[in-house]
Amino acid sequence: MKKSLGAKSLVFPTPVWVVGTYDKKGKPNIMTVAWGGMCCSKPPCVAVSLRKATYSYANMVEREAFTVNVPSERFLKEVDYAGIVSGRETDKFKETGLTPVKSDLVDAPYVKEFPLVLECRLLHTLEIGLHTQFIGEIMDLKADEEVLGERGLPEMDKVQPILFAPGITKYYGVGEYLGEGYKVGRRGV
Amino acid sequence: MKKSLGAKSLVFPTPVWVVGTYDKKGKPNIMTVAWGGMCCSKPPCVAVSLRKATYSYANMVEREAFTVNVPSERFLKEVDYAGIVSGRETDKFKETGLTPVKSDLVDAPYVKEFPLVLECRLLHTLEIGLHTQFIGEIMDLKADEEVLGERGLPEMDKVQPILFAPGITKYYGVGEYLGEGYKVGRRGV
Repeated sequence: MKKSLGAKSLVFPTPVWVVGTYDKKGKPNIMTVAWGGMCCSKPPCVAVSLRKATYSYANMVEREAFTVNVPSERFLKEVDYAGIVSGRETDKFKETGLTPVKSDLVDAPYVKEFPLVLECRLLHTLEIGLHTQFIGEIMDLKADEEVLGERGLPEMDKVQPILFAPGITKYYGVGEYLGEGYKVGRRGV
Repeated sequence: MKKSLGAKSLVFPTPVWVVGTYDKKGKPNIMTVAWGGMCCSKPPCVAVSLRKATYSYANMVEREAFTVNVPSERFLKEVDYAGIVSGRETDKFKETGLTPVKSDLVDAPYVKEFPLVLECRLLHTLEIGLHTQFIGEIMDLKADEEVLGERGLPEMDKVQPILFAPGITKYYGVGEYLGEGYKVGRRGV
C-alpha cells in the first residue's frame, strides 16, 4: 500500500549541475541547480529551471547562452556554496577558487576544474510558475582527457557526478555499475 | 585542457524513470526514459521527453496524463526491457510481471512494485526536435512506507533509484552519502 504524500516537487535522483553565465558587465557567475535534465537528442538539448529571483535568470535572458558544468564529488563544498549565495553580492568564482573560461561557441563561461561541460545556446524559454525553464541547444560537449574511456566518451565512474535527493536535501555519489543499457533486459538472445 | 567532443546529447547523471500511460482502449503501458527532470517547484512539475514514434507518445496526447515511476535497482532487467520493446506489439506489464494500478487523481496507471510514484496531469507539450517534451503537474506523490525516513519523506538509500550514463549506455546505482544540501558549503557558521 502506497502512502500519499501530496503534491510535492520530489523525485529521485536529480542531478547536481552548475550553470555558468555572464552578467551585463561580463562578470562570470555560477549557480547550482537540481531542476534539470536532457530533453532532446536531435538537436541535442538540455533543460535547466531557474527562479526569476536569481542573478543567473537575468544573465540567461540577456546573453541567451549558458553552460552546464558537471562537477566531480570532490567539489561538493564549492558546489553547495554556489547554490546558497547569490551572484548579485558575490563573485562566486573568486570565492570558490574556481576558474571561469570563456566558451568557444557561446557567450557564457564554463568551469575549468569540472570534468564535463556543455556549451549551450538558449533555444526556448518556458514560464511554468515559480521556475522558468530554459532549454539550451548543446553546441559542444567538452571533457577532460582523464575522464574519457576506451570509446573516447566520458565514463561515469571517472566523472564522479553528484546526485541530489530533494525533500531530505542530501547529496550522494554514484555507486556500483549495474549493467549495460539495452542489453540487461533483452530476451531470447 | 578540455577535449571537444562535438554537439552530443550526453550529460551525467540522467535518471531512469518509467512512464506509465493508458492507450485509447485502456491498455496500460510503461516506457523507460532517461531524458527528464524536475522543472518547477510551484506548481510542482516534472518533464519527460518522448519520441513521436513511441506508443506512449500517442497515449500521452490522448489521455493528457502520465505517471513517473521510480524503480529500485533490483528491477533493472524489467526496466531495461521496458525501454527496448514497444507497447504497440507488447503488453509490457504482462511480460515483466509488474502490476498496473489506476492512479487516484489522473488518467494513468502506476507501477505497484516501484517505491516512488508521481501522478501527473499534462500541463505543457513542447515540440523540440526528435523529442517532444511533456511537462506534467505533479498532483500526488506516492511512496511505499518502507522507503520513508524519520521525517516521513522518501530516503534515497531506501528507494535505490537507477542512474543512466548516456553515450556509454551504462546503468549505475546510488553510492555514498556525501553531505547535507545548503549546509556542507555554508561558511562562517
